[in-house]
Amino acid sequence: MREHAGAPVSAGLETSAATGTDRRPGPGQRIRVGIIGASGYVGAELIRLLGRHPDVEIVGLQGRDRDGDPIGATHAHLSGTGLTVERSLPEADAVFLALPHGTAASIVPEMAATGTTIIDLGPDFRLNDAADYPRWYGFEHPSADLLATAIYGLPELHRPELAALRHAPVAIVGSPGCYPTATLLALAPLARAGLIGDLVVDAKSGVSGAGRDPKPDMMFGEVNESVKAYGIGGHRHVAEIEQELAGLGGATGVDNPGAVAVDFLPHLIPMTRGILAAAHVRPTRPTSQSELDDLYAIAYMREPFVSVMSTPPATKHVLGSNVARVFVNHDARTGRILAIGVIDNLVKGAAGQAVQAFNLVHGLPETAGLEQLPLAP
Amino acid sequence: MREHAGAPVSAGLETSAATGTDRRPGPGQRIRVGIIGASGYVGAELIRLLGRHPDVEIVGLQGRDRDGDPIGATHAHLSGTGLTVERSLPEADAVFLALPHGTAASIVPEMAATGTTIIDLGPDFRLNDAADYPRWYGFEHPSADLLATAIYGLPELHRPELAALRHAPVAIVGSPGCYPTATLLALAPLARAGLIGDLVVDAKSGVSGAGRDPKPDMMFGEVNESVKAYGIGGHRHVAEIEQELAGLGGATGVDNPGAVAVDFLPHLIPMTRGILAAAHVRPTRPTSQSELDDLYAIAYMREPFVSVMSTPPATKHVLGSNVARVFVNHDARTGRILAIGVIDNLVKGAAGQAVQAFNLVHGLPETAGLEQLPLAP
Amino acid sequence: MREHAGAPVSAGLETSAATGTDRRPGPGQRIRVGIIGASGYVGAELIRLLGRHPDVEIVGLQGRDRDGDPIGATHAHLSGTGLTVERSLPEADAVFLALPHGTAASIVPEMAATGTTIIDLGPDFRLNDAADYPRWYGFEHPSADLLATAIYGLPELHRPELAALRHAPVAIVGSPGCYPTATLLALAPLARAGLIGDLVVDAKSGVSGAGRDPKPDMMFGEVNESVKAYGIGGHRHVAEIEQELAGLGGATGVDNPGAVAVDFLPHLIPMTRGILAAAHVRPTRPTSQSELDDLYAIAYMREPFVSVMSTPPATKHVLGSNVARVFVNHDARTGRILAIGVIDNLVKGAAGQAVQAFNLVHGLPETAGLEQLPLAP
Amino acid sequence: MREHAGAPVSAGLETSAATGTDRRPGPGQRIRVGIIGASGYVGAELIRLLGRHPDVEIVGLQGRDRDGDPIGATHAHLSGTGLTVERSLPEADAVFLALPHGTAASIVPEMAATGTTIIDLGPDFRLNDAADYPRWYGFEHPSADLLATAIYGLPELHRPELAALRHAPVAIVGSPGCYPTATLLALAPLARAGLIGDLVVDAKSGVSGAGRDPKPDMMFGEVNESVKAYGIGGHRHVAEIEQELAGLGGATGVDNPGAVAVDFLPHLIPMTRGILAAAHVRPTRPTSQSELDDLYAIAYMREPFVSVMSTPPATKHVLGSNVARVFVNHDARTGRILAIGVIDNLVKGAAGQAVQAFNLVHGLPETAGLEQLPLAP
Repeated sequence: MREHAGAPVSAGLETSAATGTDRRPGPGQRIRVGIIGASGYVGAELIRLLGRHPDVEIVGLQGRDRDGDPIGATHAHLSGTGLTVERSLPEADAVFLALPHGTAASIVPEMAATGTTIIDLGPDFRLNDAADYPRWYGFEHPSADLLATAIYGLPELHRPELAALRHAPVAIVGSPGCYPTATLLALAPLARAGLIGDLVVDAKSGVSGAGRDPKPDMMFGEVNESVKAYGIGGHRHVAEIEQELAGLGGATGVDNPGAVAVDFLPHLIPMTRGILAAAHVRPTRPTSQSELDDLYAIAYMREPFVSVMSTPPATKHVLGSNVARVFVNHDARTGRILAIGVIDNLVKGAAGQAVQAFNLVHGLPETAGLEQLPLAP
Repeated sequence: MREHAGAPVSAGLETSAATGTDRRPGPGQRIRVGIIGASGYVGAELIRLLGRHPDVEIVGLQGRDRDGDPIGATHAHLSGTGLTVERSLPEADAVFLALPHGTAASIVPEMAATGTTIIDLGPDFRLNDAADYPRWYGFEHPSADLLATAIYGLPELHRPELAALRHAPVAIVGSPGCYPTATLLALAPLARAGLIGDLVVDAKSGVSGAGRDPKPDMMFGEVNESVKAYGIGGHRHVAEIEQELAGLGGATGVDNPGAVAVDFLPHLIPMTRGILAAAHVRPTRPTSQSELDDLYAIAYMREPFVSVMSTPPATKHVLGSNVARVFVNHDARTGRILAIGVIDNLVKGAAGQAVQAFNLVHGLPETAGLEQLPLAP
Repeated sequence: MREHAGAPVSAGLETSAATGTDRRPGPGQRIRVGIIGASGYVGAELIRLLGRHPDVEIVGLQGRDRDGDPIGATHAHLSGTGLTVERSLPEADAVFLALPHGTAASIVPEMAATGTTIIDLGPDFRLNDAADYPRWYGFEHPSADLLATAIYGLPELHRPELAALRHAPVAIVGSPGCYPTATLLALAPLARAGLIGDLVVDAKSGVSGAGRDPKPDMMFGEVNESVKAYGIGGHRHVAEIEQELAGLGGATGVDNPGAVAVDFLPHLIPMTRGILAAAHVRPTRPTSQSELDDLYAIAYMREPFVSVMSTPPATKHVLGSNVARVFVNHDARTGRILAIGVIDNLVKGAAGQAVQAFNLVHGLPETAGLEQLPLAP
Repeated sequence: MREHAGAPVSAGLETSAATGTDRRPGPGQRIRVGIIGASGYVGAELIRLLGRHPDVEIVGLQGRDRDGDPIGATHAHLSGTGLTVERSLPEADAVFLALPHGTAASIVPEMAATGTTIIDLGPDFRLNDAADYPRWYGFEHPSADLLATAIYGLPELHRPELAALRHAPVAIVGSPGCYPTATLLALAPLARAGLIGDLVVDAKSGVSGAGRDPKPDMMFGEVNESVKAYGIGGHRHVAEIEQELAGLGGATGVDNPGAVAVDFLPHLIPMTRGILAAAHVRPTRPTSQSELDDLYAIAYMREPFVSVMSTPPATKHVLGSNVARVFVNHDARTGRILAIGVIDNLVKGAAGQAVQAFNLVHGLPETAGLEQLPLAP
């Protein structure tokens, strides 16, 4: 719940403790949320999840060049919700942004200053180092000072920091990219144990990650019955992966002391949803299946949305749900480790994870609105 | 809630009013449900929906040759539920059966006599006339007397009869087939208005309707990038379609007075879920788009799960939801009517519709447990 | 081989017999062909087939806004051919045009007058009656006089007329649309026998028929796992179907004496290639499976590219080949006839059929360049 | 052309030069070929290619439990060929075997001894070291002595040895597996240059590689909209890959001196045909894009079936053809090399490559019968 909406940022920053900022809704209250960028696939998925969230009221949708259009004109499957897309949002306690890179960075500072919770699903608040933006995204970050306060919204890695935003005057979550989510959940136990000596991440994604704008190579006739690699030599998500692996402490490569240089290769495969990231790890020291099993069991024992599997997981088995499934294997023949993570890229890789972080920031049960079971077959 | 479980059927039939049979759960109570045939696709979908139903507790799953197997061994996407599949069911207030034809007919009489609500998703209790079973399904119905009490579980056509089962000592619902559901919802307003003079139904289905057992022509390599017709000259679902159209009163053909002879042709198309039924109707009299629009608007104005669309609907837009979308068009050039119905064959065409009927029988809100929005893209 | 390139059309028309026009290549000669509209899917398929045709040399490709671009930049799979796309064509004996409607009509008259064989894969020379163009295609035909000389390029219906173009001074083939090809081959034996009393054609197509330009509803994420109808109330291909059925003599409907009014409904299904047309026929008189089998066997006994099947055919089984498979069934219960035709829409439904007609016009074996077996699975 | 069919092997081995064994057909002659294992996907593809091969006559097909069955009953798309499947083969000059592992090893010795060319598409004659069979395939090789004479049928690596079989009394080709073909063609230039210091191969395959027998996890409903890894910790194709990389000389790992230990991970993706192998290489020394470009250009400059691409290749662009497309990239940021190979697994990865080797063994043009262009979209 947003408080002191009219107060200037500086005042808010000074007085939050005193004024008792608390984003948790009172009894019987619903959190008023708005969605900016409602016309894309991620926007649709936010509506699907937030529209059924028990503690949320969607108060507005903002989309490109729309002015009262029924949501069904944009997302035919959501016509039953009766929502409309507008040019602007009404006052809201929390705003989810699903925008192209560089856009959120310009509008978030003013919004965040009013106390509104910001859940940004683009990359503008994921990277800690402002210098990474020109390098990976090609723009100078206009509000670099806010990067220090923004939290990388992967609850399994940053739960305490996200929960602490509940009482912070400014709450900005940089919700992770889809590939980093699958990759980091697969690798976190290894990284924490200092086992990652060398790292190749080979990932496969359905097409919905490429968004909804018509592009020649996203036409059905081009995608179906085909697979290809893309983003050769530096997909932007590498920046997040390297940042977070470094943050886990043990992820420096033996061959590249002091620096994690991930060899990351994404592929486009003929399906709509789902990401599988296969991480091929040369360990820093000999290990065993038994040690790995223990590491993963302990790491994810209490995680509501991460399941450790004993057989290689398929993306179909998490479709439509916020669950990530991870798998780890020690290859006795080669001495290598294989770690696999699968997610629905639009749920745990985007909208669902954003809601999960939002729940933490607002003091709600972490699973609220995210309890749907996967849809299979 | 099941009452007087031990009472004989005959007694129950005589005394239900007196004994006050009421299947609605008391405050704070959950209805105990069991699922027989849990290892198929429909069984999985029942678990997905009932597992999140607010008024239901799944007390048991029964599957072929299983004995305490975790559900994840059968349905990998449901491993997170912690359910197991057993050889038999514990006592339950309601039982959903998803079994091959001829199987439910043998076991239902005894179960129903105890007062347990029976929701049979197979064909054994859909047809009113016992003589239709040898003709369409190749078996003599062993409990023909029960056919008179069983209700065809299409709530949009039989809501009062389903609701009346709440107080009946024996409650058996014959849940409709997937093709009939899409077809009947598309045609009901025309049938009631006596407009169906001649009828061709050309339907397209994803492969999940064919079930889960491995068959050569259901392999990915055979299905993908292909379409074919099947069930030439008499798919079994014709029997239901003709029965229900006749029941709506106006569905007799001008060319075949007194008899509805549906020309029904199903196709298998390369997708997993979804049915589209296109009904080509020669009307019994001239009509207009405006008249048809009115008929459909009135027919479905208050239906929670039927949406009348102004553009041709796609199956993707109902995926995972219990919604049917229907569309009607008058072709001024040919004078014909086109009526289209689309559903998710495993939800509105099977498990979701069964839950919808179950809700009615148990005095619950009709939409309970069925409010998920569709999953797209 | 083109002769008397400079002669005016009128002179040609008068003197063809005298001057001995013969389009058959001499011994050891290859026919020089050009392709206009090489950048679309049909253009690619023409290159695939003509590039391996034993009697053909591709002398030029013309595409939108191209100037010496390697074909691989447009059609990646054809990069090995070494062909380039240019703004214009060199002199050629035959030109294949794959252009949007209304475009060929403007440029063909001048080209045809030089004696060059014209194989137009668009609709501009398919309809006999110029009045049909404004009605179905929205443009006034600029060279209506040529419609009388153009031959509808379905060899199974118009073989003699196509072969006669070999000696004609002007040779224009209006190559059929994909839906009409599948539909007419399925129905021709019934039409000739005067059996079509009433007709519903329900067709299903892969997306490649919609062409290659990026459109929102042709994106993989929208098409996959979905089916929808389109072209409600009058797809343009109806005009061809009705024209050709009428031409076969017996295709007038009992209910609409003197006029064939086809109820035609196309669907988009999640595959790239293939069309299945299911024709639901109410016969003008009682018939039998045996009579129908005879009609089809006789009609297609000597056809190199039409196979009469005894089980319902799948599009996969003709993929990449010029074969059409047809199937006919008499439904004793309803008295109706079902006739099914399946083709690869880009081969028998476009480029392959165009080559077949071209072969006839140039006095080549009808199967030259078209003998590839289907590609399955 | 088979000669001295009745001569014992020993005699043949001694006298081949003297007797002038020559497998090249005389003028106007066709090579008589038989196919054993015609009922699988690879068998179908052999029929598709050999059926149109200008120098071949298919004299017999042998399949499981068949006795004169028309091929169309097994492979519906091939019904037009008029071929039948029998329990045994007539005399043939060459036999292609597409059989489960361990089967060919038992029957080949006798067949090869008669002089018949053996093209085995299974693994029984791919590995040089008999000890590898129990380890990787679980059976003792019954004719280990023949392994020394068998040639690994990857023409791009073993062209001279294959061509030399033309005059050898015994000619056995162990045609490569699909994954090794894509992998080895991608890596051969690096291996020859001694650049492979460490190697991860992450491969993606369509389902046709898993064969045609119905399996639960190959059903459309399980495969579509899903991706999963399999063969964890040791797919059998690793043996071939390591053997051939070692044979190229420079493929020993810096970290594992003297032994190539490939980290190989295959994935099943929702398509029917196609393999993409992405090889992630840590080079043994610094290199550059320019050096790599030169290596690949030189290696494949004259190869009719390998194209070096400057952008990442898609499997769709080789569909149905015998072409492999390879791509190499030096990542300046990480210092690593990425090498990608794509093929149609049933053509260059199986039947096409077998025909290519067969052509070499019989002194035919290497491209005979293999000149079809890819089928796209």
